[in-house]
Amino acid sequence: MVRVVTERELLDHIALDLSAVEDVERGFAELDKGNATVPPIMMIPVPHLDAEVDIKAAYIKGLPMLAVKVASGFFRNPEKGLPSQSGQMVVIDAETGFLQGVLLDNGYLTQVRTGAAGAVAAKYLAPKDCANAGVVGAGAQARFQMRALALIRDIRTIRSFSLDSDDVRDAYTRDMERELGVKVITAASVEEVVRESSIVVTTTPSRRPFLKAAWLHPGLHITSMGADAEEKQELEGAVAGAVNILACDLKAQSTRLGELRSALRDGAITAETPIFELGAFVNGKHPGRTDEQQVTMCDLTGVGVQDTMISLRAYAIAQEKGLGVEIG
Amino acid sequence: MVRVVTERELLDHIALDLSAVEDVERGFAELDKGNATVPPIMMIPVPHLDAEVDIKAAYIKGLPMLAVKVASGFFRNPEKGLPSQSGQMVVIDAETGFLQGVLLDNGYLTQVRTGAAGAVAAKYLAPKDCANAGVVGAGAQARFQMRALALIRDIRTIRSFSLDSDDVRDAYTRDMERELGVKVITAASVEEVVRESSIVVTTTPSRRPFLKAAWLHPGLHITSMGADAEEKQELEGAVAGAVNILACDLKAQSTRLGELRSALRDGAITAETPIFELGAFVNGKHPGRTDEQQVTMCDLTGVGVQDTMISLRAYAIAQEKGLGVEIG
Repeated sequence: MVRVVTERELLDHIALDLSAVEDVERGFAELDKGNATVPPIMMIPVPHLDAEVDIKAAYIKGLPMLAVKVASGFFRNPEKGLPSQSGQMVVIDAETGFLQGVLLDNGYLTQVRTGAAGAVAAKYLAPKDCANAGVVGAGAQARFQMRALALIRDIRTIRSFSLDSDDVRDAYTRDMERELGVKVITAASVEEVVRESSIVVTTTPSRRPFLKAAWLHPGLHITSMGADAEEKQELEGAVAGAVNILACDLKAQSTRLGELRSALRDGAITAETPIFELGAFVNGKHPGRTDEQQVTMCDLTGVGVQDTMISLRAYAIAQEKGLGVEIG
Repeated sequence: MVRVVTERELLDHIALDLSAVEDVERGFAELDKGNATVPPIMMIPVPHLDAEVDIKAAYIKGLPMLAVKVASGFFRNPEKGLPSQSGQMVVIDAETGFLQGVLLDNGYLTQVRTGAAGAVAAKYLAPKDCANAGVVGAGAQARFQMRALALIRDIRTIRSFSLDSDDVRDAYTRDMERELGVKVITAASVEEVVRESSIVVTTTPSRRPFLKAAWLHPGLHITSMGADAEEKQELEGAVAGAVNILACDLKAQSTRLGELRSALRDGAITAETPIFELGAFVNGKHPGRTDEQQVTMCDLTGVGVQDTMISLRAYAIAQEKGLGVEIG
């Protein structure tokens, strides 16, 4: 029997909470210990639609199940009034290979696990005082990243910049103020966001860097989660070269598809530059931030271990609560 | 809404028939025309269990949907009394990226599309007279390959060799005689199968070659579908070097994971040896067999276009007949 769980049920029962963050944190820890098998992302391009279907997966030794995520990015969908992102995850028994569950999350679990990775980055790298947080973008991840940060640090204001319409920006302000009890300040520029914040999260699909190294200041932490493909870039390459601690989720992926790719290309960092994966902080191999004046950066591209951890979590909760239907 | 279709329904409504063969044939034709995007197979090893989950996918230009197959091979399952192979396919709208269907076929559709590829190979390469057919192995593909051949050529006897138990061999004989109205002859050796047959299909997961070039004879066609991983091999490398027409489903895959890999390694063929993909025959770029005395060989490793074609077929039939349940 295969348990098929709907998006509605997952929205109602799987939250971005500290327990979800701990699960994702454990995924990074196992990855760092060499206990995870993470094949390269499979990409199925649909070129004439500026679209692709991406597949991420990971097996983590010792866990009872593994997960495969099929995620679509169809960037002309908004022209038809449809969301560009969708996706689902399948959960497979790691002892027999048999299908156990299908999570019709429509990309929701990806939002949760991506937010959770931001929380892990903040936990080890953000300064203690994150009262003044900043965010670039006003979409789903601009929400999830600030929800995640609020789990880890006290935030009082969110300085927000985005190229979206007034309606979208107003909705962001309204939602975050109500949900997190913070003040959202609409900034006039990315520069203002960076200069006025002690932590900045960039959450855009930008293809041109918009955050300049000249704006960095002591104590700043930057998490950049937008770039996950060769053509995407949010930060000037020089940013990676200017920080005291340079981190990412998966070095092999970030240097190929993320901000570290642009930084290497621009010569701002080299193959010898120390780069630490999140798991190294979780496992205590690197202490993370040790000084409130350090400037730190973490590039997130999204790793299969996050999908496996969030899928197993969602499947376990679904089983416990009897969510979904059993078919087969 | 996502249509979820069970194995039972697929077994009852999706047959290996000429129409299924035509669909798979069209998949090879589009691949040959450069209209298909077929990313390399994604492999997720579960090393301590001698197991892996493999993902195959393809987008074919012009088709309304694409498919992703998640297939498990857990080779210690039989010790627990469980089948080693399982799997399922997801069908995605190629215009929006949205999930349309989940086919819980448990590997059945793979059996059908693999059989269908054997039919395509036989159509273009087998001699006209295939009255005396041969098969090595007595599992599911030994059945599907002979069913497929019976769609394309008149067969009267199947000479069969396998290392399976008497029970398994008896079941094979009984099933094929009843189903295809042929006489099944249990052979004493692979050599006997090859020498006495005008077409031989090898269907085993062997890791050591068991079919020798010395046994080839004028007019013989061999389809080898067992090897789909680096460690597998059914035919002596010299076989590929000794035939008049050397064919495969996908050159890039067969030379990496199939019989052509072993043949290249053994020096029986070189990078310059002409190798024709099935699509080249379908598209008339190569005439296929032109002489009843030619010796021909086709290596099948299994290509994502087959999965996409069979998934789309199964999904369309499910929609038309109202199979499965709609969820979401």
